[in-house]
Amino acid sequence: MSTLIMTIQESMQRIGRQARSASHAMLRANDQQKALALETMARELDAQRNSLRAANKLDLEAGRTKQLAAPLLDRLTLSDRTIDTMIAGLRQIAKMADPVGSLTATSVRPNGMQVAQMRVPLGVIGIIYESRPNVTIDAAALCLKSGNATILRGGSEALHSNLALGKIIRTGLHAAGLPEHAVQVVDTPDRAAVGAMITMTDSIDVIIPRGGKELIKRLADEARVPMIKHLDGNCHVYVDSHADLRQAADIAFNAKTYRYGVCGAMETLLVHKDIAENFLPELGKRLVVHGVELRACSRGRVLLPKALLATDEDWATEYLGPILAIRVVDSIDEAIAHITRWGSGHTDSIVTEQIQAAQQFQREVDSSSVYVNLPTCFADGFEYGLGAEIGISTNRLHARGPVGLEGLTTLKWVLQGNGQIRG
Amino acid sequence: MSTLIMTIQESMQRIGRQARSASHAMLRANDQQKALALETMARELDAQRNSLRAANKLDLEAGRTKQLAAPLLDRLTLSDRTIDTMIAGLRQIAKMADPVGSLTATSVRPNGMQVAQMRVPLGVIGIIYESRPNVTIDAAALCLKSGNATILRGGSEALHSNLALGKIIRTGLHAAGLPEHAVQVVDTPDRAAVGAMITMTDSIDVIIPRGGKELIKRLADEARVPMIKHLDGNCHVYVDSHADLRQAADIAFNAKTYRYGVCGAMETLLVHKDIAENFLPELGKRLVVHGVELRACSRGRVLLPKALLATDEDWATEYLGPILAIRVVDSIDEAIAHITRWGSGHTDSIVTEQIQAAQQFQREVDSSSVYVNLPTCFADGFEYGLGAEIGISTNRLHARGPVGLEGLTTLKWVLQGNGQIRG
Repeated sequence: MSTLIMTIQESMQRIGRQARSASHAMLRANDQQKALALETMARELDAQRNSLRAANKLDLEAGRTKQLAAPLLDRLTLSDRTIDTMIAGLRQIAKMADPVGSLTATSVRPNGMQVAQMRVPLGVIGIIYESRPNVTIDAAALCLKSGNATILRGGSEALHSNLALGKIIRTGLHAAGLPEHAVQVVDTPDRAAVGAMITMTDSIDVIIPRGGKELIKRLADEARVPMIKHLDGNCHVYVDSHADLRQAADIAFNAKTYRYGVCGAMETLLVHKDIAENFLPELGKRLVVHGVELRACSRGRVLLPKALLATDEDWATEYLGPILAIRVVDSIDEAIAHITRWGSGHTDSIVTEQIQAAQQFQREVDSSSVYVNLPTCFADGFEYGLGAEIGISTNRLHARGPVGLEGLTTLKWVLQGNGQIRG
Repeated sequence: MSTLIMTIQESMQRIGRQARSASHAMLRANDQQKALALETMARELDAQRNSLRAANKLDLEAGRTKQLAAPLLDRLTLSDRTIDTMIAGLRQIAKMADPVGSLTATSVRPNGMQVAQMRVPLGVIGIIYESRPNVTIDAAALCLKSGNATILRGGSEALHSNLALGKIIRTGLHAAGLPEHAVQVVDTPDRAAVGAMITMTDSIDVIIPRGGKELIKRLADEARVPMIKHLDGNCHVYVDSHADLRQAADIAFNAKTYRYGVCGAMETLLVHKDIAENFLPELGKRLVVHGVELRACSRGRVLLPKALLATDEDWATEYLGPILAIRVVDSIDEAIAHITRWGSGHTDSIVTEQIQAAQQFQREVDSSSVYVNLPTCFADGFEYGLGAEIGISTNRLHARGPVGLEGLTTLKWVLQGNGQIRG
């Protein structure tokens, strides 16, 4: 390494060129090679537990010296269980169907030429993430399976762990005869590396940031490379006048309490005025007993004596904690207007027995996932049957909602003829 | 209009807010309304020929005073034939299948919940274009049919024509009960309007620039809003050692001479060394007789005495004129490497009778369209069967290649359950 005489910028440019070149070579990779690479990585992870833990110990010690918070140290830890999970993830991804090379149905034009679209890798994917070193393996595996070259830039606090995992990844690539730069782990803790990555439009096709909202917002503001990302998960459940109220209560309770910290957690409950009186008091008690703080509109507070008065800030907030905003609405139109005004386009759900209401809600709520009679906490690629998920996108272009292998690919047109000419 | 006391920035922000609001209202539009709006526009275009030509005359007179070049004045002219073409285009788009609301096949998860994806509008589309006023109608029609709100910003030299067309569009929207701001024509010639549009990430979801490479490059460098665009069409035809040489000659001749100025025109011909001697001299003569200047590598020049010596700059250039670069290569691998190094990812073609070569070329050439035994000049949405085309994209994310109605939409996840909860 000549980092001593290379600037971070130059060093990142070189990584970018190597990735671009590897992405071209990856177009020749077949699924047997990818499966062999992933299986080798799984075996190496198992065999190298001691050296992995030794590398991880360096990060943990430095973290403790820097007085990192306990949850951060927890996420940083490569426990035996974390390693087992990574191994299982690699084997699961190895077994998934290879999306690359599949063709859509062919149409034949009047002149006889055949038109179809072929699924192909996106190219070079940059992953920018924080303290969880297991992302190194998970993201590398998904990007490799989908035929991309990948540049991984984890948190500086996890550098030793990530470099050790990078070595294991290289062993897998080598065993399968895949390009050595198909996966690169950035080896400098300097933050300038991130600044370089998000502007390297020539060599990186898309950046997927994983981490807190602040990190992602900052990156998005400065990025020139397109990003697959979401910022907020301000999710709503709307209980319609034609809802099964027992089902609605279970859905709302689950949506809020399954896990407070997931992006699919319900943050605002909207309730139709006609059923509010039969519905809210009992659900409110159940939530309060569970430790959830309620903040309701004035009409809601009449039915929920323990609730605080909600303000506009509450409608806008993703609490990610045991707080719930509640609003009584006059109609489904008002519910949809509330979601349009305050939502984040992530995941929203209606509880209703009426087909017309369900159809209107699914068509007019402009979010990446729209549910009928389900809690919003199902927002997860595994639950959708994607097999694995690299993240959730609230972008409108390209991948939207949970992003699996297919979201890491694109389509190109392939036409076949026998000498047709244009005249 | 209060532009007198509003800055351009404020005025564009208002247009953006109106468009966003219209895009939400458009989620309720059905295809009957869209068809009625388009048909009304077609009838109005026919009825308002005189006032259209009067408005157009103002632009043409100003253009002559400003001594615009003849081709520019030509493109600016709203002739009877241009108006007829716009009318036919509107009726054709009205008849196309509505892409909005269609659902992919549903999968059922083990817990019984149903997972599908619904095709929905992108949201707000900004179109930035130059002197052809007919783009106002074509782009508005495609964006409307796909359920989007649109902000149209044409060239200042066509302002009167575009405003007259905008009036006709509003008549159509009104007749169909669609939101009045579903299509807005920017009414200021000030270039600051463009600068505002490309940074209005809150109110515009995607910008489609149409015009010269310089305009698009400048916009792309400064834009914060994602763009669907292409810069170059540096297209290649590779004649393989297993090609039918008569077919190959017709394909290469057509790819170069069909129309020099289209983005799908062949700019470099790659020829396998084994067939170069039987192939190049005759094709070269035919091209030279047709007025095409040849620039060949040193091996090619041996067979093409009239050819100049090609340099790296020739491999990189999109001539858009009667010039052709020619290179003799040792193998299909070398041809693919040349395209990877010098191509623009637009459209590239192989001429071969061998399946293996065709498959390798289609898989490894990383362009938005890859052909077998066809001239590159087929790069056009109509030819692909898209019915109409808003442009061609060399982006990797989202729409790639010719972009029709589907490229102006996106997918959202729709899940339906009956009270499943996550535990």
